Amino acid sequence: MSRKVRMAMIGGGPGAFIGAIHRLASAMDGQIDLVAGVFSREYSRTLETGRSLFLDENRLYPSYEEMLRKESLRPEDERVDLISVVTPNNMHYGPIKMALESGFHVICDKPLCLSLEEAYSLREVVLNSGKIFALTHNYTGYPMVKQARDMVRKNQLGSIRKVIVEYTQGWLSSLLEATDQKQAVWRTDPSQAGIAGSMGDIGTHAVQLMEYILDMRVTAVCADVSTLVEGRLLDDDVSILMRFPQGARGVLHASQVCTGEENNLRIRIYGEKGSLDWSQMEPNTLIYRRIDAPQLIYRTGSYGLGNLAMSHTRLPSGHPEGYLEAFANIYRNVAKCIQAEWNDEEVEEIYKDFPAIDDGVRAMEFIYKVIESGKSREKWLTF
Amino acid sequence: MSRKVRMAMIGGGPGAFIGAIHRLASAMDGQIDLVAGVFSREYSRTLETGRSLFLDENRLYPSYEEMLRKESLRPEDERVDLISVVTPNNMHYGPIKMALESGFHVICDKPLCLSLEEAYSLREVVLNSGKIFALTHNYTGYPMVKQARDMVRKNQLGSIRKVIVEYTQGWLSSLLEATDQKQAVWRTDPSQAGIAGSMGDIGTHAVQLMEYILDMRVTAVCADVSTLVEGRLLDDDVSILMRFPQGARGVLHASQVCTGEENNLRIRIYGEKGSLDWSQMEPNTLIYRRIDAPQLIYRTGSYGLGNLAMSHTRLPSGHPEGYLEAFANIYRNVAKCIQAEWNDEEVEEIYKDFPAIDDGVRAMEFIYKVIESGKSREKWLTF
Amino acid sequence: MSRKVRMAMIGGGPGAFIGAIHRLASAMDGQIDLVAGVFSREYSRTLETGRSLFLDENRLYPSYEEMLRKESLRPEDERVDLISVVTPNNMHYGPIKMALESGFHVICDKPLCLSLEEAYSLREVVLNSGKIFALTHNYTGYPMVKQARDMVRKNQLGSIRKVIVEYTQGWLSSLLEATDQKQAVWRTDPSQAGIAGSMGDIGTHAVQLMEYILDMRVTAVCADVSTLVEGRLLDDDVSILMRFPQGARGVLHASQVCTGEENNLRIRIYGEKGSLDWSQMEPNTLIYRRIDAPQLIYRTGSYGLGNLAMSHTRLPSGHPEGYLEAFANIYRNVAKCIQAEWNDEEVEEIYKDFPAIDDGVRAMEFIYKVIESGKSREKWLTF
Amino acid sequence: MSRKVRMAMIGGGPGAFIGAIHRLASAMDGQIDLVAGVFSREYSRTLETGRSLFLDENRLYPSYEEMLRKESLRPEDERVDLISVVTPNNMHYGPIKMALESGFHVICDKPLCLSLEEAYSLREVVLNSGKIFALTHNYTGYPMVKQARDMVRKNQLGSIRKVIVEYTQGWLSSLLEATDQKQAVWRTDPSQAGIAGSMGDIGTHAVQLMEYILDMRVTAVCADVSTLVEGRLLDDDVSILMRFPQGARGVLHASQVCTGEENNLRIRIYGEKGSLDWSQMEPNTLIYRRIDAPQLIYRTGSYGLGNLAMSHTRLPSGHPEGYLEAFANIYRNVAKCIQAEWNDEEVEEIYKDFPAIDDGVRAMEFIYKVIESGKSREKWLTF
Repeated sequence: MSRKVRMAMIGGGPGAFIGAIHRLASAMDGQIDLVAGVFSREYSRTLETGRSLFLDENRLYPSYEEMLRKESLRPEDERVDLISVVTPNNMHYGPIKMALESGFHVICDKPLCLSLEEAYSLREVVLNSGKIFALTHNYTGYPMVKQARDMVRKNQLGSIRKVIVEYTQGWLSSLLEATDQKQAVWRTDPSQAGIAGSMGDIGTHAVQLMEYILDMRVTAVCADVSTLVEGRLLDDDVSILMRFPQGARGVLHASQVCTGEENNLRIRIYGEKGSLDWSQMEPNTLIYRRIDAPQLIYRTGSYGLGNLAMSHTRLPSGHPEGYLEAFANIYRNVAKCIQAEWNDEEVEEIYKDFPAIDDGVRAMEFIYKVIESGKSREKWLTF
Repeated sequence: MSRKVRMAMIGGGPGAFIGAIHRLASAMDGQIDLVAGVFSREYSRTLETGRSLFLDENRLYPSYEEMLRKESLRPEDERVDLISVVTPNNMHYGPIKMALESGFHVICDKPLCLSLEEAYSLREVVLNSGKIFALTHNYTGYPMVKQARDMVRKNQLGSIRKVIVEYTQGWLSSLLEATDQKQAVWRTDPSQAGIAGSMGDIGTHAVQLMEYILDMRVTAVCADVSTLVEGRLLDDDVSILMRFPQGARGVLHASQVCTGEENNLRIRIYGEKGSLDWSQMEPNTLIYRRIDAPQLIYRTGSYGLGNLAMSHTRLPSGHPEGYLEAFANIYRNVAKCIQAEWNDEEVEEIYKDFPAIDDGVRAMEFIYKVIESGKSREKWLTF
Repeated sequence: MSRKVRMAMIGGGPGAFIGAIHRLASAMDGQIDLVAGVFSREYSRTLETGRSLFLDENRLYPSYEEMLRKESLRPEDERVDLISVVTPNNMHYGPIKMALESGFHVICDKPLCLSLEEAYSLREVVLNSGKIFALTHNYTGYPMVKQARDMVRKNQLGSIRKVIVEYTQGWLSSLLEATDQKQAVWRTDPSQAGIAGSMGDIGTHAVQLMEYILDMRVTAVCADVSTLVEGRLLDDDVSILMRFPQGARGVLHASQVCTGEENNLRIRIYGEKGSLDWSQMEPNTLIYRRIDAPQLIYRTGSYGLGNLAMSHTRLPSGHPEGYLEAFANIYRNVAKCIQAEWNDEEVEEIYKDFPAIDDGVRAMEFIYKVIESGKSREKWLTF
Repeated sequence: MSRKVRMAMIGGGPGAFIGAIHRLASAMDGQIDLVAGVFSREYSRTLETGRSLFLDENRLYPSYEEMLRKESLRPEDERVDLISVVTPNNMHYGPIKMALESGFHVICDKPLCLSLEEAYSLREVVLNSGKIFALTHNYTGYPMVKQARDMVRKNQLGSIRKVIVEYTQGWLSSLLEATDQKQAVWRTDPSQAGIAGSMGDIGTHAVQLMEYILDMRVTAVCADVSTLVEGRLLDDDVSILMRFPQGARGVLHASQVCTGEENNLRIRIYGEKGSLDWSQMEPNTLIYRRIDAPQLIYRTGSYGLGNLAMSHTRLPSGHPEGYLEAFANIYRNVAKCIQAEWNDEEVEEIYKDFPAIDDGVRAMEFIYKVIESGKSREKWLTF
């Protein structure tokens, strides 16, 4: 038996940004149908969004609790399988917990939750539930990022010496939250975003990207955490020195006040034998610099790539795949895992490749350590 | 009343390339449901594809004729609205004609058909049907191409003097058709592709892109049409000098034997006051060079763009949109037009922006003129 | 015995552009001393320029004839060895002829002269003189162009199929000659520039670059030769279809009315096994695209280069060498040849690599054929 | 009165790298003649180098002391004016001091000297001598760097918030010094290079570039100083967090073990209203990103530039100027200052723009602070 996965969404109403992206990404590969949702705290707005998506009004709910309860009671051939949580950070914990405990699989936007305590608690919930839990650190969905991981794993760089990760944006260069721009408001509000601003919003992407490719975790950090726009309540700029096992060094800087920058996430990894260079804004190119030979340019869908990259690619080379396709890779993989479970089949290894609860907990630990370091006069804080 | 548009597909079975792309593009924006299809001449393969897409087997048909007939007879709240034709060129005419005459809207892959006669006939059919007909010259779906058209129209370049369009690929650098690679086989077979090889497959994209942005038509051509891989039956390389109204000059070259090239479609337009430069492989950048000031870089979703570009953009700048999103813009627009028709509403101007029957006829005329010129000892052939 | 080569210059007075470049290029490698000159038709201006260069006033002459005569009479340990001719095209023939016949070596700016007749005559003069004659088609002085030639010669591309050469500038987008801008005035004046404008000024660079790398000559052309700025007396835009031996095809377009372009000379060469892509504005990069492997990036001074490129490189990779260094390679090589001659030594092969009389004659033939084709209704004109 | 400046060189014998560059750079603009030298500690090698440069053997000296003494005694119309010091760091102090005290102007390669004490002493010597002293931090010789300084000064970025400077090379990725490669040997030897390896060799360039453009000095640093290649005696990798006046933050990282990197010096400066981005390997481009408008691309020699940039440019835009031209700008400016002095003229402001003793002292202070920070457990060290 197989069929499309039925999905319900929590969050993503009018004015939201990431909710629409989740919908596009989940629809793309034809494996998932959005059939239910609570898109806003206001039922009228849920109705508005739901109608624009042509959803059955019986499956537009006033609260997530009601949705999860009522969907649980529906007959199996109608009931949703998967809950997509796309609310602000402070509204992750409740929905995730209840959804998993109600027997649903869950995909949640990052970061995992509001606090480290919530993160540890959710780890328990996930483990106990036996359900699939995915976190949309979507940048690791790009084929060239998969390729980078593959090459590091196959020792094509030799032992790693230096890592440079940067994530610069400019959209918070002014006090945008004072204008009621919805995206800015919640991301700079400690009660909705947690203890970190830019570190949580984009810094965690940079960390997860780095540790995913390296398959190795930072052991110590020394951070400068700043709020460079006057009047802002959370950090908007962080710079971090890092230490890795076996002596590798690293620099990570993330900022949302780098005026004029769009969404510049870039990682460079230097090993004894070669290095890799990948930029999110030109995501289909991976530069491989070698110690004693001309550099090689890997391109999505082109020659020389491993199976991990190829299996997350839809198009021939030169037909650019972008952000939504990378995002969709997570949804596609989760759908494949769910479908395999239905049939008691072992799912292919490549479909298991998506960020999960451990990525979420790690990112929360990283946020906490960086914020602590930012306040500390001690140079190095270790994990 | 509104709902998703119901679509059936003709073509796109196992081994096809463009069919899968049409499916991804049509699904992305949540406006269209694929509900029926005949994906192959062999019914077993249609079943195979249909099942993998979780379609109702009652709506998997052995032939397009049967599908169109039976779907016509279904009740209105079930019947498909739109037929997507993604077969090789020689299988466009029949399906398009019958679909339109049966009252369905049609989206067809390019080029329009096999011959100029078919093209003129289809123009009649479309006009008589009153139905929507779209042709997936998807490259004009990119936001930065829309922006270019907008800027030319607003006279930001001054009067146009020179146009350079190139479309280079390398995948046919060897006699790939001898290996039975399906994509190569039909594209190089005159009985399936028509009188032109690369000129029809990619040259027409270049022409349509150029004339769309310029809103002006080439008046004369002088072409060198070549088959550079021995044993190939159709052209794989064309170079064309062009003349435009008001004295502008142009060069267009398209080739599928440019070894190592991926999908390099690029256009440069030079006017008295400034020029534009756009490349499909970096589609989110549009370079605007001015006669006496530093060049400006326009970026998808960023500052300085007109409504035409913005209304075909899904993501904030720096979150790359690619080939599928451009393709999806055609499907989205067609869906919006169909939905507006249901409600007898005037559709917004921006949604009418997709390639249609005139683009298809023009491209066929262009193909014919170029092939004729290739054989001619006369220098200039006029339209 | 060795010493610096002593040079005199004809042309290059106040307001000239290329004269200053020749001086910078000749000085750079410490092999040549500028010691004499006639920089202008007006002696006062020659004095002005000569003084600013700290030259001995006894060696500033009122006319080139006088200079050549008087320098001939100087004692051998004082007399100049080399004449650099940097006047407008109509003032090449006389100085070159007299200089060679007076026993001096000559370096001349391109194009060789005003007419094909002059060119053939100069070829005789050079051959009879036994002197060194170099033409500053400086773009073939770039290390990465040398590398390209080397790779074609070593068959790393397989047999050549398609060549695309472009040279676009924008500085003549307005009728600049009407403003008395000196560079524009003579280049657009048939009496000073000859029968061609842009074709002579930049088109010949493109041709020479192409034939140098390919070591193969175009056999037929079909050209569109245009004057796109009203009131101009010579062509400012040419587009040319080309045929090569063994069936290769080509496109060459050169224009000085491509608004906003700086000095965009680019060549792409496609063979059966691979292709090369080089751009003058990023001259230290050579892209090598292979038929079935990731593309390689060659970089000046870096790994994988042949001796021809390395021997024309001064700096470690990543320390950009530019236009002047490429130009200087011609002067350096000529100096080395002269010095070897003094000692009756066989000069190293690499130093013989500079454009000479045959390049000059060929370029003149090419100009004439293109201008003829531009006026012809016949499609192909052969050489 | 004017004439070429007469120069003597100390260092730059066979196998040296930077000496040859100084010679190319000093020769280029025709303002300076190299007439004397002591190129090596071994006189035979000085003779060898001197002959290859066609120098008078009477002016090839066995020691710098002898050269300075004997040149002092030469008649004024023969005596050298300027001493170029291009020895390893440990051989800067003596020659600079003696040259200045003997009444010569001095240009020295960076860093200034071996220790902070030497630096302070040299500052005294320079001030007391009244002579011109220049330090070849050549990267600030690039026109686009001048333009950046100009734009910061004119407040086109608004107040500065974040600065990112990186300088990555890969040539020391292996223990090259063990192979007796001369460049590697002295740079990694504390007795010749001083207390710092990469920090002194390239880190100081990054610092000087940053403070030159910003016209503002770092107030505190927190550094991770590492030796990542086993067996090396000095640092080969540094990462530094920085604080500036008025609250701006910065990151600087420099490394010579970034495998595959060539000479990647890049700076990005983010202000309230806009930002700048410049890369040494594409030195003719300066990206200006604005808070609410499309980004502008400034190009050497093109539109929109200030006088500071234009006066350090030799060629029209699109004719790439590189490393040697930037280097030559320092020599040209020094020559102009010397010539002005001869005539008791006030030199033009633009010619005073070259790195001098204060840059040298500052760089030494920076080195010391960074090395101290690398060993400290305290987070921030202030200047």
